[in-house]
Amino acid sequence: MHELKHPYLLFLGDDEDPLAAKTATGIAHWRRDWCIGQRRLPGCGADTGLPDMDYAAAAAQGAGTLIIGVAPAGGRLPERWMAEMTAALDAGLDLAAGLHSRLIENPALAEAAEQRGRRLIDVRHPDGPIPVGRGDKRAGRRLLTVGTDTCVGKMFTALALETEMRQRGHNADFRATGQTGIFIAGSGICVDAVVSDFVSGAAELLSPEAEPAHWDIVEGQGSLFHPSYAGVSLGLLHGSQPDALVLCHEAKRPHIDGMEKWHLPSLEDCIDLNLGTGRLTNPDVRFIGASINTSKLPADEAERFLAETAEQLALPCVDPVRTGVAPLVDVLESHYA
Amino acid sequence: MHELKHPYLLFLGDDEDPLAAKTATGIAHWRRDWCIGQRRLPGCGADTGLPDMDYAAAAAQGAGTLIIGVAPAGGRLPERWMAEMTAALDAGLDLAAGLHSRLIENPALAEAAEQRGRRLIDVRHPDGPIPVGRGDKRAGRRLLTVGTDTCVGKMFTALALETEMRQRGHNADFRATGQTGIFIAGSGICVDAVVSDFVSGAAELLSPEAEPAHWDIVEGQGSLFHPSYAGVSLGLLHGSQPDALVLCHEAKRPHIDGMEKWHLPSLEDCIDLNLGTGRLTNPDVRFIGASINTSKLPADEAERFLAETAEQLALPCVDPVRTGVAPLVDVLESHYA
Repeated sequence: MHELKHPYLLFLGDDEDPLAAKTATGIAHWRRDWCIGQRRLPGCGADTGLPDMDYAAAAAQGAGTLIIGVAPAGGRLPERWMAEMTAALDAGLDLAAGLHSRLIENPALAEAAEQRGRRLIDVRHPDGPIPVGRGDKRAGRRLLTVGTDTCVGKMFTALALETEMRQRGHNADFRATGQTGIFIAGSGICVDAVVSDFVSGAAELLSPEAEPAHWDIVEGQGSLFHPSYAGVSLGLLHGSQPDALVLCHEAKRPHIDGMEKWHLPSLEDCIDLNLGTGRLTNPDVRFIGASINTSKLPADEAERFLAETAEQLALPCVDPVRTGVAPLVDVLESHYA
Repeated sequence: MHELKHPYLLFLGDDEDPLAAKTATGIAHWRRDWCIGQRRLPGCGADTGLPDMDYAAAAAQGAGTLIIGVAPAGGRLPERWMAEMTAALDAGLDLAAGLHSRLIENPALAEAAEQRGRRLIDVRHPDGPIPVGRGDKRAGRRLLTVGTDTCVGKMFTALALETEMRQRGHNADFRATGQTGIFIAGSGICVDAVVSDFVSGAAELLSPEAEPAHWDIVEGQGSLFHPSYAGVSLGLLHGSQPDALVLCHEAKRPHIDGMEKWHLPSLEDCIDLNLGTGRLTNPDVRFIGASINTSKLPADEAERFLAETAEQLALPCVDPVRTGVAPLVDVLESHYA
């Protein structure tokens, strides 16, 4: 499992499109107190609002890791950033990235890191052996966000739940299963990059035995109804053995993300299949509510959509951006008191 | 996808326990006409019945590949076999193994193979890029063997079906998803060694578009009810998009293989979940029968068990060893004529 040293310095690169740096934006949003500053190159269109800073200044303030918070074209580190990376290593920072190509496979970077005793951390790729899942019941509570599709807010919802639960004094930890989530959690495993035999084992490693009142809030991946990725979702569901599930969805999504011929499942079918399969490792699994991205709807329609869906499912329905997730935490508090 | 050159010479090693060479035994059973001979070292307790042969003699008769058909202790090639391996390469054979450790990671072997222009084939490990599954409907028919557990006869049943179908003149190909299966098919992908994001894509690659009357008989893996491996089974189910399913089971198995606290699902639950999830990529998926290993029962009880199960499920039930699989092929012929 990857473990990152914070505080972070966020590297935003030189892309004029601010969306290229959405990983950095997400980290700055959810873990502002872990972020010392940002490093932007000429031409960069993104801005997290953190102070601009060079590597020496960041190191002097205690920064542990430079996070590559921008997605370069082609998924690999451009040659023009190499002097920046070396300067960060020189200043004493680890480098962490979630790129398809590994930092560690760049010989110049690998040598520079080795010489300086720094780490190159490729969060997209598992960094050590992962056991086969055993399904043994573990102490502690677990919540998993599941969805009708990919990219429907499973990470966002999990982080919003962690925030709300901590504010109310609960002992809750977000458990990251994807690259952006790992930067935000400071640790985690990209489960979709794990060899298939070990996905449930990775989920068990991520949410280990804990105090009875502790909650792991596990970031879901994919969907049991996605023709490409359902196996990942099932392994994650079995390994997390969640007590509580939250159904994530985007209102008015026309089809499965990137697959025009594929319909989304109904919310009821998604609930039924997650419960039916989730009971294998936790017979008491239940849905505590739904978290719906209503950003495609005007405010009044969004409100109506949430109310109607709540009635249809007999579950509280929130939009984590518009309404917050307090009603879901209310259910947790009343049901698992 | 791995592609092996046959005919094969089977390497049986030097273990006095004949079960250590069960991979070789399986290959000799299902593909006797691909096997030129066997190579046994002093102390070997196994015997496939093939002629004993050295590498030069095998090469002279056209052998393409030496198959390591024995599982060495620890999962890696013992040093004492190195002279044998080098002699096989010298004689002009490729080497193929399904070990946890890769042949290619042995520097002496890698160098010897490179010098001689021979291949080292590690069938347990994918040998090239695998696409993400797309779920697109492909021409041709597909059958997948699924099970209540691991090791209930999914490979055996698929091979028995291929044999019976070919004998009746059907155009059918066994598609291998595990290491022994790959030696028997001469090609395939170990799906449980594929990165989880690509399992359904691997299944699509294994059973590509074909003539409308062609049948791929896909070797199932794991079980949707196995707490360790269900994700692999689901990805394989979605990627294979089977028209026909065969339910594999072992009569009187007391619990999930190697997991004493875990019950097997009922046959009905296993049928329901495979149909419910399989419909995502093939709405017409159906079960054509069950294949039950009754080896723990005396003959009369076995017969009764098959009859009662057939009535219970309203499907033909066979034991592929005791009764053969003809009744299942009868269903295929009548339903998909």
